[in-house]
Amino acid sequence: MLRTPHGAVETPTFMPVGTKGTVKGLTPGDLSATGAGVVLGNTYHLYLRPGSDVVREAGGLHRFSGWGGPMLTDSGGYQVFSLAKRRRISESGVEFASVYDGSSHMFTPELTTRVQEDLGADVAMVLDECPPADAPREYHVESLARTARWAERCLEAHSRGDQALFGIVQGGLHPDLREESLRLTTALGFPGYAVGGLSVGESREEMLHMLSLVAPRLPAEKPRYFMGIGDPVGILQVVALGVDMFDCVLPTRLARHGMALTRDGRLNLKNARFRRDFGSLDPECSCEACTDFSRAYLSHLVRENELLAHRLVTLHNVTFAGDLCRGAREAIRGGRYAAWMEGWVARYEGRVAGR
Amino acid sequence: MLRTPHGAVETPTFMPVGTKGTVKGLTPGDLSATGAGVVLGNTYHLYLRPGSDVVREAGGLHRFSGWGGPMLTDSGGYQVFSLAKRRRISESGVEFASVYDGSSHMFTPELTTRVQEDLGADVAMVLDECPPADAPREYHVESLARTARWAERCLEAHSRGDQALFGIVQGGLHPDLREESLRLTTALGFPGYAVGGLSVGESREEMLHMLSLVAPRLPAEKPRYFMGIGDPVGILQVVALGVDMFDCVLPTRLARHGMALTRDGRLNLKNARFRRDFGSLDPECSCEACTDFSRAYLSHLVRENELLAHRLVTLHNVTFAGDLCRGAREAIRGGRYAAWMEGWVARYEGRVAGR
Repeated sequence: MLRTPHGAVETPTFMPVGTKGTVKGLTPGDLSATGAGVVLGNTYHLYLRPGSDVVREAGGLHRFSGWGGPMLTDSGGYQVFSLAKRRRISESGVEFASVYDGSSHMFTPELTTRVQEDLGADVAMVLDECPPADAPREYHVESLARTARWAERCLEAHSRGDQALFGIVQGGLHPDLREESLRLTTALGFPGYAVGGLSVGESREEMLHMLSLVAPRLPAEKPRYFMGIGDPVGILQVVALGVDMFDCVLPTRLARHGMALTRDGRLNLKNARFRRDFGSLDPECSCEACTDFSRAYLSHLVRENELLAHRLVTLHNVTFAGDLCRGAREAIRGGRYAAWMEGWVARYEGRVAGR
Repeated sequence: MLRTPHGAVETPTFMPVGTKGTVKGLTPGDLSATGAGVVLGNTYHLYLRPGSDVVREAGGLHRFSGWGGPMLTDSGGYQVFSLAKRRRISESGVEFASVYDGSSHMFTPELTTRVQEDLGADVAMVLDECPPADAPREYHVESLARTARWAERCLEAHSRGDQALFGIVQGGLHPDLREESLRLTTALGFPGYAVGGLSVGESREEMLHMLSLVAPRLPAEKPRYFMGIGDPVGILQVVALGVDMFDCVLPTRLARHGMALTRDGRLNLKNARFRRDFGSLDPECSCEACTDFSRAYLSHLVRENELLAHRLVTLHNVTFAGDLCRGAREAIRGGRYAAWMEGWVARYEGRVAGR
C-alpha cells in the first residue's frame, strides 16, 4: 500500500503517463473509472509548457489538471537525455535545448526539486543521469557517482513535507555498478526507490537480470518503482521481481495507433477482420469502450483517425493495465502469483484458448 | 415538438454534426449531457466509410454509434457538390469521385433513399442538387425542376414507415425560383421541409432575405429545417424567421481550432491572456469543461494540441448551442423572443456588459 496525501494506492500499480498534465484524451473522471491509482506528470514538459510557474499559480498540478488522486512527477532527467538534440552535463547540472523551441535551459538538482515542489505531486524524483546502456564502463562509474551526489543535493533542497522524494538507482548493465549505485543511494535514506536506466534498448533478458540483482536489495519496507515498463508481460515480470510501481507511455501510445490490449493479445484495430466484428473489444473488460461499442465501430473510428478512437482505445488500454495489476494483487494475496502469471501469459500469447 | 421513433425534441433545436457516425471527440453519453436533441450523420461519408452495408449489418446507425436519440441523415447531395473534384450530373443522378480514394460512384434518388433506410435515421432527406448561388439563372431553373423530379423519385423509393423523408427547397437567390421550388416540393406532400442552397457564400443579408421569403410559406404544421447555420447570431436570426431545426459543423470545427463560444463572444483560447486565467471558460455554462477546468488549463491543452482540448471545447460548444436554443424556446413561449434576442446579441457582440 502506497499512502499519499491524496489517498492510498494498492500495489503493484501501473501509473498512466499524463505527460503535459493530461493522459491524452482522458478526463480525471475517466481516469478514476479506469481504476488508475497514481498518475504521472513529466517535469520536463510541464516546466516548459505551460511553465511550472503557471501550474504553481493554479495551485499545483492537482488543481490545474483536476486529478484529485495520487500523482508522481519525474525529475525531467530522462527527457533531457532522451529528447534533447543538444545537452551539456557538468557537476552542477545539465544544460539542454528545449525540444519545443531550441531555447537553452539548465536543470540542476536544486531546480528540478523546486519545480517538482511547485507542481506539488505526492511523489517527486531526484535528478539523475540516464546514460545509454552501452556507454563505456568508466562513464557509468563517473555518472552513477554524480547521480548520487545530485541525489544528496536534491534531498537537501527538498522542503515539502507533504511530498515524498524518491532516489534512483543507475549503473547500466554492470552488476557491480548497480550494487555501488544502490549502496550510495540507499545510504541517503529515501522514502522510496526507483530503478532507472533499464528498458532503454537492452534485451528483456538483460533487463530482468539486472532488475533481479537490484530489486531484492532495495529496502523491503519502501516502495520500489521500476521506470518504464508498460507491456503486459513485462509488467508481470517486474512484479514477480518485487516491483510495486511502474509507468510507461506504451498503453496510451499504442491506443493512439489503434492497438488495443486484450486478454487474448494485442489487437490492431485497423485489421480488416474487425470491419464487421460486432462483438465487444474485450468481453471481460468493463470499460466504456468495451461495454458501449463494438469492435466494428472502434475499427471504423481508428481507420478514420477519429478523436473518439484515440479516447476510447486509450480508456480501454489504461483500464486493461489497471485490471492486470488488480489480478496480480489478488494472486499475490492468494499466494499463487507464479501459477496465475503463467496462465495469464500463456493465454495472452495465444498458447491456450481464453474463457 | 419534433416527434420521432427515438423520442421527441423541442424546437427550435441545433443538430450537432456526427459526420462519420461520431460527433468528433464525444461519446453518445456526452451528447446527451449537452442536451443535444437530434444528431446528424452524413450519408456521403457513411456510404463510403465504413460503408452503409456495414452500418446496416450493425443494425443501423443508432446501434452502430450508440446514440439512442433522434437522428437525421442528409442525402449526401451537398457533399457530392462541395467535396468532389469530379462529378457529372444527369437526369438519373450524379456520378462523382470519392474524396477518399478517387473511386467512381453514382448517387441516384433511389440509391440515397435506400442508403438512408440502411442507416436507419429517424429523418432522411431527398437527394437534391445544390448549385452555386452565382450559377446562371437558367441553370437554377433547370436544376430546381430536376431536384423536384428527384424528390418525387425519392418519395416513390422510400419504404420505411419509421423514417420521415423531408423535401428540400432550392432556387438560389432568385425569389421567383425559390417560390417555384417551394410550390413543386410542397405539392409532393412531405412530412417536413428543408431550405437548402443558402449559407453557401452569399451575404448574410441575402441569405436572410431569401429565407424570409421561403420560410413563412412552408406548411406551418410541418418542421422547417434550415441547412447549414451554426454561428450563434445566425441561429437566432433563422429562428426569428420560423426555422425549427438547423445543423452546422461550425461549433465543433471551431472547437478543434481552440475557439470557444461564450455568452460574451467567441474566445480564441490560444490568446496569451488566457495563460493565467484561472476562471471558468463560461461561468454560466454547466458543461464539464466549464465546471471542472480553468481557462488556463484549457488554453494550455489547446496550445499543446492535446486530444482533451478538442474533446472539452467541443463538449462546451455543443452545450452552448443547445443552451442557446433552450433560451430561444423559453423566450418564444414567453412571447418575448424579439427583445430577448436583441439583448442576447448585444451582449454576445460586446455592446453591453454581461451579468
